[in-house]
Amino acid sequence: MDTKNIKIENIEINSSRFHIWAGPCAIENEKQFLKTAEFVKKQGASVVRAGFFKLRTSFDTFQGLGEKALSFVQKIKKQLQILTVSEITDPRQIKYLDSVTDIFQVGTRNMYNYELLKELGIYSKPVLLKRAFCAKIKEWMKATDYILKNGNDKIILCERGIRTFETSTRNTLDLNAVAFLKKESPFPVFVDPSHGTGLAQLVSPMSQAAVCAGADGLLIEVHPNPIEALSDKEQALNFSDFKELILKLQPLLKLYNKSL
Amino acid sequence: MDTKNIKIENIEINSSRFHIWAGPCAIENEKQFLKTAEFVKKQGASVVRAGFFKLRTSFDTFQGLGEKALSFVQKIKKQLQILTVSEITDPRQIKYLDSVTDIFQVGTRNMYNYELLKELGIYSKPVLLKRAFCAKIKEWMKATDYILKNGNDKIILCERGIRTFETSTRNTLDLNAVAFLKKESPFPVFVDPSHGTGLAQLVSPMSQAAVCAGADGLLIEVHPNPIEALSDKEQALNFSDFKELILKLQPLLKLYNKSL
Amino acid sequence: MDTKNIKIENIEINSSRFHIWAGPCAIENEKQFLKTAEFVKKQGASVVRAGFFKLRTSFDTFQGLGEKALSFVQKIKKQLQILTVSEITDPRQIKYLDSVTDIFQVGTRNMYNYELLKELGIYSKPVLLKRAFCAKIKEWMKATDYILKNGNDKIILCERGIRTFETSTRNTLDLNAVAFLKKESPFPVFVDPSHGTGLAQLVSPMSQAAVCAGADGLLIEVHPNPIEALSDKEQALNFSDFKELILKLQPLLKLYNKSL
Amino acid sequence: MDTKNIKIENIEINSSRFHIWAGPCAIENEKQFLKTAEFVKKQGASVVRAGFFKLRTSFDTFQGLGEKALSFVQKIKKQLQILTVSEITDPRQIKYLDSVTDIFQVGTRNMYNYELLKELGIYSKPVLLKRAFCAKIKEWMKATDYILKNGNDKIILCERGIRTFETSTRNTLDLNAVAFLKKESPFPVFVDPSHGTGLAQLVSPMSQAAVCAGADGLLIEVHPNPIEALSDKEQALNFSDFKELILKLQPLLKLYNKSL
Repeated sequence: MDTKNIKIENIEINSSRFHIWAGPCAIENEKQFLKTAEFVKKQGASVVRAGFFKLRTSFDTFQGLGEKALSFVQKIKKQLQILTVSEITDPRQIKYLDSVTDIFQVGTRNMYNYELLKELGIYSKPVLLKRAFCAKIKEWMKATDYILKNGNDKIILCERGIRTFETSTRNTLDLNAVAFLKKESPFPVFVDPSHGTGLAQLVSPMSQAAVCAGADGLLIEVHPNPIEALSDKEQALNFSDFKELILKLQPLLKLYNKSL
Repeated sequence: MDTKNIKIENIEINSSRFHIWAGPCAIENEKQFLKTAEFVKKQGASVVRAGFFKLRTSFDTFQGLGEKALSFVQKIKKQLQILTVSEITDPRQIKYLDSVTDIFQVGTRNMYNYELLKELGIYSKPVLLKRAFCAKIKEWMKATDYILKNGNDKIILCERGIRTFETSTRNTLDLNAVAFLKKESPFPVFVDPSHGTGLAQLVSPMSQAAVCAGADGLLIEVHPNPIEALSDKEQALNFSDFKELILKLQPLLKLYNKSL
Repeated sequence: MDTKNIKIENIEINSSRFHIWAGPCAIENEKQFLKTAEFVKKQGASVVRAGFFKLRTSFDTFQGLGEKALSFVQKIKKQLQILTVSEITDPRQIKYLDSVTDIFQVGTRNMYNYELLKELGIYSKPVLLKRAFCAKIKEWMKATDYILKNGNDKIILCERGIRTFETSTRNTLDLNAVAFLKKESPFPVFVDPSHGTGLAQLVSPMSQAAVCAGADGLLIEVHPNPIEALSDKEQALNFSDFKELILKLQPLLKLYNKSL
Repeated sequence: MDTKNIKIENIEINSSRFHIWAGPCAIENEKQFLKTAEFVKKQGASVVRAGFFKLRTSFDTFQGLGEKALSFVQKIKKQLQILTVSEITDPRQIKYLDSVTDIFQVGTRNMYNYELLKELGIYSKPVLLKRAFCAKIKEWMKATDYILKNGNDKIILCERGIRTFETSTRNTLDLNAVAFLKKESPFPVFVDPSHGTGLAQLVSPMSQAAVCAGADGLLIEVHPNPIEALSDKEQALNFSDFKELILKLQPLLKLYNKSL
């Protein structure tokens, strides 16, 4: 099925472009965010991950900086001229996230949060809809209606790995779903190999595999110093690994007539 | 581990009581709700299911009556002197559901909706926290912290079946989880065999099995005429089957020194 | 559906009887087997587990005594007048296991080993067919045809827990499957709560739950000193726990008009 | 980890070669096998699938021609000078399959059939070991010991899709496992996108994705006329689709410094 083009400010998701949206799992401080945003943009990332709220299973673990980060992210956005994608976890966050975010990300824990999806349908801002831990492809496709039927058709699907019996990898990245969606859904499909594998060393091969499965883009966790990351340390790429990933992807994308 | 007692108006969840919370999957109209509420109360149900919002995978299927049902439910509550449990899907619903609901139910799709859980933690009203489609027991236990640490310790867990490869039953009712929680968690554990099996004919044997696994109560879907139900027709019990279920449970509960 | 009665020597599986087949995970030595067999029989077990071959994921772990145990098991069978159930893993084992085993057990790893099932169909000896790690109920029911159509209708199904995303328990005991099979299959259904939970402390509640789900019997791992067991130490019951389990089951079975 | 080279007659599995093993799901008759073998060889397949026994869930469905096909397969092997891979389901089949098969395939249903694996360890013939429906990667790796420790180190692993909650695809092809094994296991890893997806239209994209994940080869079902196939009709490629797949793979393999 033809994939609809989605324009976001000065970038466009379409059949000749491949997008890499990269950045830290969560904003930890101004320096870490600035440094990472600067680097990933320089390498060709078209959007920077700017996580204000980090959903965690445990109430006592780092939950993100929240509103505290708003001001410096706004400043850095202007300074670096970057677009950002930020997870939203409550309709009431829209009012202030709206000013600092170019794309609303709905995470795996909120794919079934239909009230949030309906609310995002009222706005014209693009929505990156991640697949729930164990959402069937058909359920995921139907979830887009909650956004679409309220008027917003700027929807991007993101496969981030499903939950299975396997324990050697954090999740099971379902590239079947990507190939299936490219035939059955009109929306662009991104892949998050960082959460999809949970292991930094598998991010590069699975990113390349995602290109072949038909993905329109990747969501990659990058951190200046992963072992010191406050979350997802095992799966974040350091700067040199991220740079190497881009170098690996370049010729592959060329083969598929796509470019960053 | 000892289970904490939870008082809800004139009823109490404790080691000598077993609770049956029954009613329609969703409120379809005043007559259906009145008829069902009256019947299940007469049979011994301590709480009536009053579903205003029916979360559905498909945007186009029946989504519940919503606020339209508030007034007649309020009237019927007074008339029949019943307590009700209602699913809440958005923090913004609290303000009006609060007046008509005695227990807030967080459904399987919202177990990971931590913003909603935090909000419910601010209130003193009991929360029935259903397990997400594929939440690990440990994740589910940790989710209670989002309610507890905001001050509300009136939490009731509800096993409703997990998602597996099996297709003969709608879900796989995980009674291991019930037995495990009774040893590891301080909160009462309910079981929803209606969603847990998806088949009306399995509700009775699995309800009895739940008692032995250590459950403190059951959540049962009952409908005056299941084949005409607007949702979950395959799993709702008709009145005579519900009555028979209660008769089956009576001697079993006695054996475990419990009573309705 | 009516369950067919199955006669095994001097015992019968039928609607008024409930069977407990117990013993060690594997035969470790003559003393351990004699001691355990003697005890479980005294408590009311109708069949003793006599595992010659212990299928293990790792080649290097204890694999069972194999043929070395044949002679003393034969002796003990005569001495104690007990019936035994033994796992068979290869058609070529039939010739000598036949003399020392009253019931052939096909384990979870061999449910799909159709050549073995066909071979067992030629004999008249009862077959306890365990469910594969992730066999759908329908696949499991169809597997019985490989035994049945070769002439042997003495088939007993055994639910032993399925593989899911859950990690707090070793497997997810699917009692839905038991209730479903009692309505759809003509064969008796046993439950193995030892493998089904992987935790000794959950064996008693889940054994009781199995009775309510409709099980015709239980397969229980018992060991004189679980912590020293060469396999499955976490899930084997010691003698006092096994005795207590029987005491718990007695009144429950009476309620269901069944007896050991 | 370096992958060990495996020589099979006149071909070798090594880092500079990529293998395509193709053919019908099962041999249906001489003409179908000859036609398919001839075609896939011409397109560059290094080994032809020659299935004598087709394991089926249902006893009553087509089970393969069995020994009836031996003579004409032997003739065609000589005539076309092809190598063949055949599934083996019972140690007792070795004696006659040995003469007509160059590689023994152990299917998903027999990965846990350790007696069969041990037997195949005694021979020097290569073994293609498919992953069981829900084998964890670690279990699968350990299963190789049953072959290896009996002296046969010519082992090829084959990912064929695992069983999950997803129903839009027949299985969930786990390419994470491929990338993981290339780092942790010394054995070559093949991928079966036919069973891994269950949908012919997904075979090409997932075959390409498998190359990027690090696969050393593919196992592809090809049939002269899929809609008339006696098994797996939805997933078999017709001749023109297979030819197109090869054309797609050529430049991709070149990029990875591999060739057919």
